[in-house]
Amino acid sequence: MQIEKVNLQDKLNTFSEHWTPKIVGELNDQFVKLAKLQGEFVMHQHENEDELFFVVSGTLFIELADTTLELGPGEMVVIPKGTPHKPFAPEEVCVMLFEPKTTLNTGDAVSDLTVDKLEKI
Amino acid sequence: MQIEKVNLQDKLNTFSEHWTPKIVGELNDQFVKLAKLQGEFVMHQHENEDELFFVVSGTLFIELADTTLELGPGEMVVIPKGTPHKPFAPEEVCVMLFEPKTTLNTGDAVSDLTVDKLEKI
Repeated sequence: MQIEKVNLQDKLNTFSEHWTPKIVGELNDQFVKLAKLQGEFVMHQHENEDELFFVVSGTLFIELADTTLELGPGEMVVIPKGTPHKPFAPEEVCVMLFEPKTTLNTGDAVSDLTVDKLEKI
Repeated sequence: MQIEKVNLQDKLNTFSEHWTPKIVGELNDQFVKLAKLQGEFVMHQHENEDELFFVVSGTLFIELADTTLELGPGEMVVIPKGTPHKPFAPEEVCVMLFEPKTTLNTGDAVSDLTVDKLEKI
């Protein structure tokens, strides 16, 4: 297998849709994903998976039960399994995600926002 | 448990030593680590763990069996388990690592560079 580096911005330049994570790497049964987010997502939780959000560009808000986090470029947060959270972004934000391969983007809140077949880019 | 964001640069500002990864997050039995690297490390491999290097600042070189990768800020690579690799950096580079909690920095090449007790920052 060829080992190749990934340039996040180059990968981000290949797509424009929102709320549609793309796989850019995998390790130890986890996927590394990139996504562009804008607007409001649904409040949801992942029963069995911790999820990491790392902001590449823009500002990401994550509404929790009792507070709202605000993350800028170079900031990250781990949302532990079983924690209801709702990402939102008034302006477009580009994020890198780390989560187990089993993770569904909408967690327990399956809807037309659910993406169950992820593209590798 | 309080959910708090992590600002990579703020964390990097808290230490200066090289080749001493610090834990800044954990999820799904993996650690997120930050490290400052300068000079040459040892060629080593991890028998059971894939390892991700993400460059925050500076330039990281990773020597493999048949090539050498060069990674700049915003670039990452996954080194699959069982792959001999030797990181080196003529100038200081700051990296974020993702790897299973069981991962030892020097893999199978235990030496005085081995750090088996990692600090959380």
